[in-house]
Amino acid sequence: MYRSHNCGELTAAHINTEVTLSGWVQKSRDKGFIVWVDLRDRYGITQLVFDEERTSKDLIEQAQHLGREFVIQVKGTVIERASKNPNMPTGDIEILVSELIILNKSILPPFTIEDKTDGGEDIRMKYRYLDIRRNPVKNSLIFRSKVSQAVRNYLSTEGFIEVETPYLIKSTPEGARDFVVPSRMNAGEFYALPQSPQTFKQLLMVGGMDKYFQIVKCFRDEDLRADRQPEFTQIDCEMAFVDQEDILNVFEGLTRHLLKEVNGVEIEKFPRMLYDDAMRLYGNDKPDIRFGMEFGELNAVTQHKEFGVFNNAELVVGIAVPGGNSYTRKEIDKLIDWVKRPQVGALGMIYSRCNDDGSFKSSVDKFYDQDDLAKWAEITGAKAGDLVCVLSGDTNKVRAQLSALRMELAERLGLRDPKVFAPLWVIDFPLLELDEETGHYHAMHHPFTSPKPGQIELLDSNPGEVKANAYDLVLNGNEIGGGSIRIHDKATQAIMLKHLGFSEEEAKAQFGFLMDAFEYGAPPHGGLAFGLDRLVAILGGQETIRDFIAFPKNNSGRDVMIDAPAPIDDDQLTELSLKLNLKS
Amino acid sequence: MYRSHNCGELTAAHINTEVTLSGWVQKSRDKGFIVWVDLRDRYGITQLVFDEERTSKDLIEQAQHLGREFVIQVKGTVIERASKNPNMPTGDIEILVSELIILNKSILPPFTIEDKTDGGEDIRMKYRYLDIRRNPVKNSLIFRSKVSQAVRNYLSTEGFIEVETPYLIKSTPEGARDFVVPSRMNAGEFYALPQSPQTFKQLLMVGGMDKYFQIVKCFRDEDLRADRQPEFTQIDCEMAFVDQEDILNVFEGLTRHLLKEVNGVEIEKFPRMLYDDAMRLYGNDKPDIRFGMEFGELNAVTQHKEFGVFNNAELVVGIAVPGGNSYTRKEIDKLIDWVKRPQVGALGMIYSRCNDDGSFKSSVDKFYDQDDLAKWAEITGAKAGDLVCVLSGDTNKVRAQLSALRMELAERLGLRDPKVFAPLWVIDFPLLELDEETGHYHAMHHPFTSPKPGQIELLDSNPGEVKANAYDLVLNGNEIGGGSIRIHDKATQAIMLKHLGFSEEEAKAQFGFLMDAFEYGAPPHGGLAFGLDRLVAILGGQETIRDFIAFPKNNSGRDVMIDAPAPIDDDQLTELSLKLNLKS
Repeated sequence: MYRSHNCGELTAAHINTEVTLSGWVQKSRDKGFIVWVDLRDRYGITQLVFDEERTSKDLIEQAQHLGREFVIQVKGTVIERASKNPNMPTGDIEILVSELIILNKSILPPFTIEDKTDGGEDIRMKYRYLDIRRNPVKNSLIFRSKVSQAVRNYLSTEGFIEVETPYLIKSTPEGARDFVVPSRMNAGEFYALPQSPQTFKQLLMVGGMDKYFQIVKCFRDEDLRADRQPEFTQIDCEMAFVDQEDILNVFEGLTRHLLKEVNGVEIEKFPRMLYDDAMRLYGNDKPDIRFGMEFGELNAVTQHKEFGVFNNAELVVGIAVPGGNSYTRKEIDKLIDWVKRPQVGALGMIYSRCNDDGSFKSSVDKFYDQDDLAKWAEITGAKAGDLVCVLSGDTNKVRAQLSALRMELAERLGLRDPKVFAPLWVIDFPLLELDEETGHYHAMHHPFTSPKPGQIELLDSNPGEVKANAYDLVLNGNEIGGGSIRIHDKATQAIMLKHLGFSEEEAKAQFGFLMDAFEYGAPPHGGLAFGLDRLVAILGGQETIRDFIAFPKNNSGRDVMIDAPAPIDDDQLTELSLKLNLKS
Repeated sequence: MYRSHNCGELTAAHINTEVTLSGWVQKSRDKGFIVWVDLRDRYGITQLVFDEERTSKDLIEQAQHLGREFVIQVKGTVIERASKNPNMPTGDIEILVSELIILNKSILPPFTIEDKTDGGEDIRMKYRYLDIRRNPVKNSLIFRSKVSQAVRNYLSTEGFIEVETPYLIKSTPEGARDFVVPSRMNAGEFYALPQSPQTFKQLLMVGGMDKYFQIVKCFRDEDLRADRQPEFTQIDCEMAFVDQEDILNVFEGLTRHLLKEVNGVEIEKFPRMLYDDAMRLYGNDKPDIRFGMEFGELNAVTQHKEFGVFNNAELVVGIAVPGGNSYTRKEIDKLIDWVKRPQVGALGMIYSRCNDDGSFKSSVDKFYDQDDLAKWAEITGAKAGDLVCVLSGDTNKVRAQLSALRMELAERLGLRDPKVFAPLWVIDFPLLELDEETGHYHAMHHPFTSPKPGQIELLDSNPGEVKANAYDLVLNGNEIGGGSIRIHDKATQAIMLKHLGFSEEEAKAQFGFLMDAFEYGAPPHGGLAFGLDRLVAILGGQETIRDFIAFPKNNSGRDVMIDAPAPIDDDQLTELSLKLNLKS
């Protein structure tokens, strides 16, 4: 037995108890006649004391030679501390050590094992096992585990069955790029790793499994943007004999449960917003509604003057920045530079100051009088002391630009409080999305999403207008989940695939098994998937997911700790009926 | 809303309630003036009734045209059945239908959706989504979900943290063959899918995570024997600051909890058996101890006569078959043929009948007298009416052969009752195992297993004798879990890898990250992994795992439902810097 207690649980109630503790040396202070050692484990830190009066000389000497991160075991007595530390749970006591065993030594770690470490991202990733000893990472992983159990317990109680779907499946060119796995036993053939268990969960519905869930790894071989991982985790769910309302209610219940269980936050009914409204009011399908700054469309009150920039724009749109009139000219110029950065891409920004006396001062006073500017203020909801920022251009682009500006300003103004939670359903997504490069429509959600009843006829005449029974759950400006009611009959699925550019042969080769399944009594069904990595990060009050993943990969898809991927033996390649084909 | 109730919950208490049900048409009986339809969903079957007196003509006609597996929705009133069926939960009631909607039609299923189907294995796999509608498969999957939740809840309550380890890791030639995943972003390099999260869970221990678990998919590219899957699920666990005793206690607790929670069976302390004893008494490291038939070693009482077969054998060993003296000569000859089958491989079998009058009659009466045969009976524990079966030859082979015979006879004698649970710890496994083909030793468990204290010196002189702190949990003759105390210092790990034939460079290239980690204060640690597929099958009273896996692969590693693996596009190959290299 290596320990009788852990390093986080001893209090004044244990005084005079004989204990055995094990853990890591966090730090030691050596006064010569007395040595204190902070002993750390997963549960906390307990102070050890060795002193001339009560400890043998040998033992003090041993203690003096302990290095940081040594693993030790001690026996001793819990005693009251002379100077208590009210900031730590074990701060009332210390251990008068009678026996010390070094279980393992440590060489000097490449960074300090402290909440605020001196290690940069790269070195921390290479020595992730040391990084995990730090509270911010350790607590994030423990938090994740807590969320996962809460999810499973809630869904199990609601009658959902956890079903494990296969990881070695079939590659489909639709959507993102698959990771593939060569099959040795079937030479020249490949499995693919699932981008999601989508078709399998639909087959479970056909199989009568009615309420399915799974917390499952998914894989996408995409060029990695910041904060994207080639493997990620989904809470994947599907239900049969449900309509959209049933699904929203169940998963609103789950999310409400998590917020209460994990964050202690109680939230009533989640608001719902049409996709079209989200785009119009926030320029974004995942609006952060913890704060206002809704868009005001200004075409009607800007396109009657000689200002060509606005007159030629498809959309003129502004937001009111609370208190923004206090910005200096220089600060506003910086803001204009910010929106002109290539990542945002605006050509410029027009502004109008809302002075305390009710007057306005804009950067386009030449074109617009006080009455015009008063209308800008009215439409954007600007009050005295605010600043109206206006962008113009093509609708989709300008919405994205103004949305970026809105989020940036909210961040600067401290309006994105990570302790405040504002969930939102965005519903009635378009079925199809125009790929501006190719001019083709592709499925906005996926090819199995059902168009709204009665809208399938629009597919030929006006495909961009067809709405789907598709919905996203948004939390604090992040999409944390999304799903749809699925197609459950072969004919509709065939029409859908045809519109997505699949020939009949391609459709059959790739999705034949699903379309066959629809012929044997497929029930109406739909579902939803949450991105667990992001959900956990947001519930944990953070926006980057990396600390919530035990062993993340870097932006080149590498695990720098184990140094993967790596070359494999020629024998292995030959066995797989493969040859390298490297560009020279 | 597609339903107010499910098809398994309505009872006499609901009589006169208006309900809406949805489900599949299990079968219908049409008497012309009255039609009964069995409506099925995940929860059960409810009888619908349409009759001339109370139902409109149209509705009866509609009901008459319902085919098997049609998906329908009905509204109606719960009424008392004229002839009740006490064998089904809903047997007291039926639904007098007032409204019927066909949600989806079905063509004729390729096999009957009944507990005992007319579909063979192959067709059931191809239409697995229909197979899942059948109770035996559906209930197995629901049972699995229940076990998984029970495992996670128990371990979470015990302070274990669920940590997801990566699926895209690095290939290591040690052990079974890896599935590999070409990296597009790192041309010419490959990830491997984990055979287990072994090194990652050890790094979590180095990271202070102290109690880890995960229910996780693992992958092995092996030629598939019956009942092996290329992807399988482990309950993977690891603990730090523990010795073997701590680990056995925790996972005995888990298993006891499962047996109670899932099977309603209470079992006290699990027995423990040394590996050497298991091999000696049962010829097997996973003995089924639901019944006796322990081996009796007969060298001392057989090698004093002129019977060359025994005299030349390394081991002469027998078992007593309860009541076996009732076998006819023909039956015994069949048994001898059975042990001579290539799958068992014995050259022959000697037997001795234990007559009711205390005399013996053996197949080698020429060599052995009644006193000799009395000793055989004594040593094997045979009583009057039993049959002593004796095999001889090389120790390892003959043990395996007699073990196979013991299991076969127990099966025939009905001694392997799936409702009886006999767990057993087998401990003190050898560290190394001789590969008889190559003459090299390899790790019996894995290269990270710790030799028993003080035995590391034996590695040079007598490697086969070194015992490890390694243990298996056996349930009803199946290994359901296994683990070990791990090496946690770099020097020992280096010695171990050297003995396994790794050069220093190979050791560094493959396990350098782990050995580096051991230098930064690695705590003593150890763990265990359960095979979930098998565990669930055995708890479910079965020995084949296939019905407990939603979408299993066949013996060629194919998913015949989705037809994977499959060829991929040339573009995909090129992007991955690969070319096919097929043997012509």
